[in-house]
Amino acid sequence: MKTNLPLDADRLWTDVMALADITDPAKPYTRRSFTALFLEGRAWLAQRFAEAGLATRLDAAGNLIGRIEGNDPALGVIAIGSHSDTVPSGGRFDGIAGVATGLEIVRALRDSGTRLDHTIEIVDFLAEEPSEYGLSCVGSRGMTGSLDETMLALTEPSGETLRDALRRVGGDPDRLDRARRDDIRAFLELHIEQGIVLESRFLDVGVVTSIVGIRRLEIVFQGEADHAGTTPMNLRHDALVAAADTVIAVRRLAEQLAAEGPDYFVATVGILAVDPSASNIVPGRCRLVIDARTTNPALTARFVDAIDRDSAAHAAAARVARASFKTLSDGPPVACDPKLREALQQGARDLGLGQMDLPSGAGHDAAFMSRICPSAMVFVPCLKGKSHAPEEWADRDAIAAGAAVIYQAVKELDRSLPRSR
Amino acid sequence: MKTNLPLDADRLWTDVMALADITDPAKPYTRRSFTALFLEGRAWLAQRFAEAGLATRLDAAGNLIGRIEGNDPALGVIAIGSHSDTVPSGGRFDGIAGVATGLEIVRALRDSGTRLDHTIEIVDFLAEEPSEYGLSCVGSRGMTGSLDETMLALTEPSGETLRDALRRVGGDPDRLDRARRDDIRAFLELHIEQGIVLESRFLDVGVVTSIVGIRRLEIVFQGEADHAGTTPMNLRHDALVAAADTVIAVRRLAEQLAAEGPDYFVATVGILAVDPSASNIVPGRCRLVIDARTTNPALTARFVDAIDRDSAAHAAAARVARASFKTLSDGPPVACDPKLREALQQGARDLGLGQMDLPSGAGHDAAFMSRICPSAMVFVPCLKGKSHAPEEWADRDAIAAGAAVIYQAVKELDRSLPRSR
Repeated sequence: MKTNLPLDADRLWTDVMALADITDPAKPYTRRSFTALFLEGRAWLAQRFAEAGLATRLDAAGNLIGRIEGNDPALGVIAIGSHSDTVPSGGRFDGIAGVATGLEIVRALRDSGTRLDHTIEIVDFLAEEPSEYGLSCVGSRGMTGSLDETMLALTEPSGETLRDALRRVGGDPDRLDRARRDDIRAFLELHIEQGIVLESRFLDVGVVTSIVGIRRLEIVFQGEADHAGTTPMNLRHDALVAAADTVIAVRRLAEQLAAEGPDYFVATVGILAVDPSASNIVPGRCRLVIDARTTNPALTARFVDAIDRDSAAHAAAARVARASFKTLSDGPPVACDPKLREALQQGARDLGLGQMDLPSGAGHDAAFMSRICPSAMVFVPCLKGKSHAPEEWADRDAIAAGAAVIYQAVKELDRSLPRSR
Repeated sequence: MKTNLPLDADRLWTDVMALADITDPAKPYTRRSFTALFLEGRAWLAQRFAEAGLATRLDAAGNLIGRIEGNDPALGVIAIGSHSDTVPSGGRFDGIAGVATGLEIVRALRDSGTRLDHTIEIVDFLAEEPSEYGLSCVGSRGMTGSLDETMLALTEPSGETLRDALRRVGGDPDRLDRARRDDIRAFLELHIEQGIVLESRFLDVGVVTSIVGIRRLEIVFQGEADHAGTTPMNLRHDALVAAADTVIAVRRLAEQLAAEGPDYFVATVGILAVDPSASNIVPGRCRLVIDARTTNPALTARFVDAIDRDSAAHAAAARVARASFKTLSDGPPVACDPKLREALQQGARDLGLGQMDLPSGAGHDAAFMSRICPSAMVFVPCLKGKSHAPEEWADRDAIAAGAAVIYQAVKELDRSLPRSR
């Protein structure tokens, strides 16, 4: 890795660590959106934004935004960002690294005496992680006109609506139109990979080709909860047998679709619940949730069709009913912008970094931002691919390398973005 | 079915219904051992015992015993019994029917002016169902010298030991030797079948040939809880995949062993727990519990060996570790006494009832009693085989027919049991 980067790796690292330290001490690292700790983290961030010379504000969708005007304000905005909230017992990097990257880029530009033609904004999106209100990417939904009244009416367990929570943290749910943007010309996000592809190939950065679409399916098998001692094998209606066959079918089909290439495909049975769950009772009911992700919607359709057929056949073989087969959610894949990807690739080349193109198997604010502007992402390697856990780790130099790639791309895009107004 | 039985079917039925009515009203039918409701049920039973002319006592193992002396006390005891506790949200018959049967037999003998040579005891065994202390058959273990210090030290969730609980309900855990019996010459138990064999063959009673041995195995697969979006299929360590393959292996092998005959064999995966259980996380750990039951220990050995091999192979194929493969419990099968079985078969023939021999796939107090005396059981059909559930049902006449078979057998055994002292 090249160590002579155009920004200050230590200064960037210090910010990441300082923000990570603002955590629930009983459950490191936890800074859940809408909590007092989250607001404490944002107050710290706003202070750092101000020290870097950024004009800081909250938009109506609750996003914290730092802004430095360009030479030609009419050219519009190049935005850089990610999120500062975490999952419960999450890590120090997921989200934070991307926000701190934007901040460091602004400081590095200032230190080098560079003033860009475009205005730069650093965005800390509100509530990227699934919030207590059952919604993720609240801020990027708001900024892209995708936060609707149904979502605002969602409540957390004690009854507060997302609408009230948004107002409580400084947003304005009644004027979300003000958060909707049409002046952003490019959005760039740095994030830890949350996978092991870069690490296993000893590469510095990944340039994201597209962000997967996610289809969630729920299947319920309904059999009979019989006595495990007195019910002969040939008279059983065991829901778990049908579920186990379906788990194997999902695995085999996902392996096949992934191996076919070139598109990315993964599928997982992450939830399998047996009812009743007792050693001496034949499982009467079994619910499983399948998560299928791909960059090619045609693969999802093939997968769902095949699992539909397979699970029905497995139910029949086990003499149980397939009581439910339904889609819980269905988000389409999003392609990253080719021009922005090229700027990132060129940046990595200029810096002498090892790079590859790769899809994002996780969702990100960039997926929503792509609805209103060209968007792209840089991944940096993280230890053993671990994320959403306290052991989540990315090296100081890895983050700095990824940030430097975005720095290079921002300077290039400032020159090369279309200037028609 | 013959309706002219040597006992009062209505009186027996009334007792079963009255005891069933002593239930947690919020969760019919629940009368958990060691609770106030359980003691209320026993107070009601003790009253009925006394009205039938029985001398009533609690033994040191917490069994409620009603006794009527025979003409020749030196001949020893013929015992009849079952249990009055239930599982949570259980049924009205499991256990209760067997206790009420003993009571009705004593009344029927009295009504017919018959005094037997042997002393008769009716036993309501303490805590036959798995108790909050993690142990079943507490009373029959105690009566047969099988309740040890390790068991007495077991605790329920709030911390009370079984030792203290036993004392609380009137037992004497420090003098369990007093509960140990050597004077019982025969033990007979009526129970609902908890299966559908008798019902499907339109038979009145089943004479139990043997009570299955139960082997419980726990297998834990340990993989890696990776991100379900970012972890390619070929880099996964999915514990649920190994577990699902094992569920299928258990099912196939159990079907094969059951089909081979003539021995009874069933095996069930009743518990399968995924950790973490989240739609977007590859299962990192999976625990399953296998319950295998047979009348032939050689089949258990074959089964365990095969599942040991299979589960290890499935773990390797899924790139996970088989972190645990262990026996949680292992009770041997118990053959019912041939002489007592013959007495029951003859009783059924005398009454003109349809009968068959069949194994018991469920455990019963009779399995422990067989350690100290000849023991046998009569099964009566129950609707659709349902048990341990509120819809558990046995017809009035079905219970009365089974009770009459035991009545006949008791009279026969009173004549024919060996009289050497």
